[in-house]
This record gives sequence, C-alpha cells and structure tokens, in this order.
Amino acid sequence: MNLEKPYIISVYAILRNEKGEFLLLRRSENSHSNPGKWDLPGGKLGQEETLGEAVAREVWEETGISIVPGEIAGYVTFELPEKKVIAIVYNEGYVIADVKLSYEHTEYAWISLDNILEMKTLPAYFRDFFKRFITESKKSSEPPI
Amino acid sequence: MNLEKPYIISVYAILRNEKGEFLLLRRSENSHSNPGKWDLPGGKLGQEETLGEAVAREVWEETGISIVPGEIAGYVTFELPEKKVIAIVYNEGYVIADVKLSYEHTEYAWISLDNILEMKTLPAYFRDFFKRFITESKKSSEPPI
Repeated sequence: MNLEKPYIISVYAILRNEKGEFLLLRRSENSHSNPGKWDLPGGKLGQEETLGEAVAREVWEETGISIVPGEIAGYVTFELPEKKVIAIVYNEGYVIADVKLSYEHTEYAWISLDNILEMKTLPAYFRDFFKRFITESKKSSEPPI
Repeated sequence: MNLEKPYIISVYAILRNEKGEFLLLRRSENSHSNPGKWDLPGGKLGQEETLGEAVAREVWEETGISIVPGEIAGYVTFELPEKKVIAIVYNEGYVIADVKLSYEHTEYAWISLDNILEMKTLPAYFRDFFKRFITESKKSSEPPI
C-alpha cells in the first residue's frame, strides 16, 4: 500500500497548576506546523521509545519539567500537510515547577478551562479534546448509582 | 482525575495473503471480551514495549508469524466493560506463512474485503476500519493530478 499521507504517533501532556489551570505553550512563528498557535507540551514518538518515555522526554525538552508518565486521558487526531497524526494525551495531574521553554515555543500560560474553550488560537482538535475531557471528568465524579 | 474507565493502548496488524485476502482470527468462546467473534491479530501494549515491539510480539504469539513492524494503517477506538481502547493498526502487507493459533483463538481465515464488509461477527469498529482503509488505499492509487 502506498498511502500518500503516512500516519505518525505523537504524545502530549496536560499539566495543571494548583489553581487547576492548564499549561499551554505558544508555538514559535517559524514552526513547520501551526506557527504562532497555542499547543500542549508534546511531540512525535521516536521509533525506539515507549509512549511513556516519549511523553516524559517531550515535556522535559519543552518545559524543563520532569514527569513520571501518568494515565492516558484520551487521544486526538489531526492532519498536517504531509502526515496524519494520532496523538495520545497523558494526564499528568498537578505540577509545581518553573517552566523553561525551548526554542520551539515563545510563550507559556496557565489557562483556565473556561478560557481554553474560548481560545481562537488553539487548534480545534485540542479545544475539542478539552471539551471531552471535562465531560468525562464530570461523569466520573458523579456518585455511583 | 478519576475516570471510571481508564484508556489503554492496543496494537493490531492487518496481514494479507497472495490473493489479497486479510487474515482474521476467531476469538475463543471463553474470551473475556467479544467471545466467539472474529478479530485481527493483536492485543494490549506492554508498559515497557515500543508499539513496534508490541505488534510483532502479538502477531507472533497469536499466529506464529514473524513480522517486521510495517507502516501504521490507522486506528480504531472502542469500549470494553472496564476500559476504553485506543488501538493502533499496522499494515503488515503480504505474508506467506503457516498460521499457528494460540489458545486465544479457535479458528482463522483469509477473507476478501467484500466478505469482510458483510461479516456480522466482526466487531463494527474493525468493519468500519476496513471501509476507511479501502477508501484511503483507492485515493492513494489514483494518478497524481
């Protein structure tokens, strides 16, 4: 088979501060994809890596924060000009740490969920992910029947 | 967060014979999930494994066929009673090999695509996957504009 656009696997992490706000990073203006847009920490899975190793490496490279890979919170899929991406999103829970950006991002912010859902510069696949994430978190915090 | 149903990652493989038929396995009647239903070779990703290692191990365990992990053909997602599954499907291309089943399956068959799309005992998420797979294969075999 010779699909024109190969699939690749990426990993992303959601991290929250003590107020429950989520960490987002703004992509550099000369990024290959989504320049200047907001983003989650994360990136492409290496051939020789486990998913957990990849998410810890990407979070470390892009934020200077050390994590122990948490639970999987869900997935998003999207298309870039040359590939289709299946992205596994880890829930890293709450972190207390300084953020040290890499060259890939120009800015970071801790943003409340309500504000995330209003953001025009966050790709739609991540906005939709946060909507689902909240629905599922609410469901699971309801008392068992 | 305490989602009631955790996500797990699985890997599956599509393998074809020289006629282009796909290898399906029938799950044992005492399987925990989907007993007696048809299935693709594959299973759960181990914590310490890469995706490629996992798909090669599962195919070997369930069919006795050695593969070198191929391209990713896509993904399926589904829910089981206790978990939600994100399954990455590898395209292993054409194989010439005898199939040796494990205890997990009771039968195997090489089945043409037309027949796969008619099968009532293949879970809908795999049937839908094959539909998408075909659409994408056709697109990519069209001459470039």
